Amino acid sequence: MFQEATYQQRRTKLKNDIKKGIILLLGNEESSMNYKDNLYPFRQDSSFLYFTGLNRPGLALLIDPEQGTEILFGDELTVEDIVWMGPQTPLRDEAAQAGLLTVQPSKALDAAIQKIQSGKRALHFLPPYRPETALKISAYLQLPTTAIAAQASVPLIKAIVAQRSVKSAEEVAEITKAVNTTAAMQLAAMQQARAGITEAALAGILQGLAVSAGGNLSFPTILTVNGQYLHNHYSDSILQPGQTVLCDCGAATAMQYAGDMTRTFPVDQQFSTRQKEIYNIVLHSYQQAVAALKPGRLFKDIHLLACAALTEGLQQIGLMKGDIQESVAAGAHTLFFPCGLGHMLGLDTHDMENLGEAYVGYTDNLKQSTEFGLKSLRLGRTLEAGFVVTVEPGLYFTPQLIDAWKQEKKLASFINYDKLEAYRQAGGTRIEEDFLITPDGYQLLGDPLPITAEGIETIRQAI
Amino acid sequence: MFQEATYQQRRTKLKNDIKKGIILLLGNEESSMNYKDNLYPFRQDSSFLYFTGLNRPGLALLIDPEQGTEILFGDELTVEDIVWMGPQTPLRDEAAQAGLLTVQPSKALDAAIQKIQSGKRALHFLPPYRPETALKISAYLQLPTTAIAAQASVPLIKAIVAQRSVKSAEEVAEITKAVNTTAAMQLAAMQQARAGITEAALAGILQGLAVSAGGNLSFPTILTVNGQYLHNHYSDSILQPGQTVLCDCGAATAMQYAGDMTRTFPVDQQFSTRQKEIYNIVLHSYQQAVAALKPGRLFKDIHLLACAALTEGLQQIGLMKGDIQESVAAGAHTLFFPCGLGHMLGLDTHDMENLGEAYVGYTDNLKQSTEFGLKSLRLGRTLEAGFVVTVEPGLYFTPQLIDAWKQEKKLASFINYDKLEAYRQAGGTRIEEDFLITPDGYQLLGDPLPITAEGIETIRQAI
Ligand SMILES: [Mn+2]
Ligand SMILES: [Mn+2]
Repeated sequence: MFQEATYQQRRTKLKNDIKKGIILLLGNEESSMNYKDNLYPFRQDSSFLYFTGLNRPGLALLIDPEQGTEILFGDELTVEDIVWMGPQTPLRDEAAQAGLLTVQPSKALDAAIQKIQSGKRALHFLPPYRPETALKISAYLQLPTTAIAAQASVPLIKAIVAQRSVKSAEEVAEITKAVNTTAAMQLAAMQQARAGITEAALAGILQGLAVSAGGNLSFPTILTVNGQYLHNHYSDSILQPGQTVLCDCGAATAMQYAGDMTRTFPVDQQFSTRQKEIYNIVLHSYQQAVAALKPGRLFKDIHLLACAALTEGLQQIGLMKGDIQESVAAGAHTLFFPCGLGHMLGLDTHDMENLGEAYVGYTDNLKQSTEFGLKSLRLGRTLEAGFVVTVEPGLYFTPQLIDAWKQEKKLASFINYDKLEAYRQAGGTRIEEDFLITPDGYQLLGDPLPITAEGIETIRQAI
Repeated sequence: MFQEATYQQRRTKLKNDIKKGIILLLGNEESSMNYKDNLYPFRQDSSFLYFTGLNRPGLALLIDPEQGTEILFGDELTVEDIVWMGPQTPLRDEAAQAGLLTVQPSKALDAAIQKIQSGKRALHFLPPYRPETALKISAYLQLPTTAIAAQASVPLIKAIVAQRSVKSAEEVAEITKAVNTTAAMQLAAMQQARAGITEAALAGILQGLAVSAGGNLSFPTILTVNGQYLHNHYSDSILQPGQTVLCDCGAATAMQYAGDMTRTFPVDQQFSTRQKEIYNIVLHSYQQAVAALKPGRLFKDIHLLACAALTEGLQQIGLMKGDIQESVAAGAHTLFFPCGLGHMLGLDTHDMENLGEAYVGYTDNLKQSTEFGLKSLRLGRTLEAGFVVTVEPGLYFTPQLIDAWKQEKKLASFINYDKLEAYRQAGGTRIEEDFLITPDGYQLLGDPLPITAEGIETIRQAI
């Protein structure tokens, strides 16, 4: 936990932003795997964690901005619980460490909400992403679970996004810790990969490191020789000479701040000529994008700048042609880069994604595009000092997409489909790092990890 | 997946057992961690897996025993899904590998169930343990989610328990694979533990091994110097000289069959005299229990036999006194062993626990006790050839429980409370292995891992 003042200041700001009505922040419950008592690792709701620091299941916080009151609902362990689970800091003491001085038993929440409802006061709550949370709100509001999301409070979402978007120095320190563990995972992948090992075997080593560092994975590891499939995770496929491995992984600290990095490296000690050619196009795009990070810049423009750099590189190796700006405007690069340049990073890997990309990555005046490619850009809005963002361009050669486009001769004035045939098996290449936006520009988070093709080959050759 | 015939035979037997009504088996959905698309590792429902072998989210199986029909409900990937997730075996093909030849889209399930409801035919379903499953059934039956469990089909539960309790040779081979990975995790813990490392750091290494082997943990690892708290997992506590580590962990294979083993070992190279004294009492109890494993024996009696052995050992070191059988009958040993000797093991670590201990571990004629100690014995019923069970006696010195008993002089004719003071910090010691009940007796599953105090010390001294 951070200092008491941190949580108090966050809640005070929230109360100042939401002047009317009552704020209900629901913590998460345990999640069952294959029977009730076999549990997934507990993951607290990030906004609940942000305002309370309390990382245990079964809690709820009711804030009345008009009266200034804050009530935490949750239960103390019984003596029998302690016999089975071991002694824990009493909830009341831990809550006090976050400045929450009023604690009531869980069962009192229902009556408290009924009172609000009967008083016709607005209840501000966040859109649920877990079924049990939807069920709770459904019971409070007497509405079907499917109708809950539409009733979520836009003012509350906006107020929380405004606060969580700008990271404090202590948050940046936590994210940096996560990034350093993530870099250690990446280094382990590059050092321990070899022909004959499975993707899963490598992914397991990485997960072990995240847990060993006191936290867990921040998201399911992507570690695959088929990196062109963006949401491919890992399998029992055996690494083969001549392949490249795309590894996108992240550690979360015990406080749940996340890291998120990607490296792409050869199973052999060196990239092939073609692999290095592609790698260097992605690296150049990455460098162009990073150099543009600055408060006041639209992240959407930096994304398009990275797309232009990818297009330029693909033109140089003969896969694309035509005017670069026209090509980018037409979205020709989306055949190779169908996704976005990056996203916010914080307590969530895709920070605040459950609050809605429309509020987190866009604004009332800048709406998310619905076009292929741009629709997958999670962050478009103007950068501000204190934002933490990822930069992660890539090139993906997806046979199914190439075939579909080629068949309809899509954007054929920008794409050399004939030359592309030789690249059908070129897989996926991505580079990703995490950055703090500073008043003057940007700062790479964490200790630098080799990022050039040559730097990666040096690691591969040392094994 | 096993062979097609395996799944067909299992379903045929089920149809023969449930002659009337319709059977609905619901597969699991993905579970979200901190936002919708950040997912916990997918875990299929074990009964669904048992009857279909299909290990992907969003499926349901409707079986009509009267007409002999089987309809699988689920959706194929779209081309856009493939672009993002990579090619997968089409659902229709994978279903055919399990002998399921009729596949309909998910959205057809609702109408199919309405038809059953309007035809007044009974719908047999299992008690849900996940909220989204309860929500689905609630929608089908027009009942509140809280009323669902009581409507679950007892005939279906009993039929599935009857089948899943007796493991086939191919299931035993899968469990053995899980046990061998589990043994490798235990060996890694014993080899890599040292003063100065955290519990979490060791637990991370073990989790890495489970994932690397192609599966995952079968349950959250217990790895703690405070093994007296039975549901304590691991923390950032640093191992100290003089302590013992209790490690209870298990791997699940890719098919989800589970292993579950426990070792207790010293942070030093050797147990202290007192630690070894306690260890050998537990080992003796373990050996007595194992020797009694045999078809036709009540597991409850073997549990009591293990309790008698623990009592005898505790009498020898002066902590207990009095007639052993009377002491066991009075439950005096529950101060040191408040839990059960073991449980069924299979697709779940506590196999079929979601179906209810009353059906899995007990029968209509043998009910589970409500007394402290025996109420935590998950398995009481008569052993049969083909059962796979754990044997896991232990001794736990829990200061809070000792204080509570001592204060009320509970069972003081059997317990030497004065001598016990010196053992307040003796922690927890458990030994656990997995066994197949054979026609003649039992078979230890997996390659043997050192289990005597001396064998463990040899491992600790080799590091
Ligand atoms: Mn990312
Ligand atoms: Mn067990």
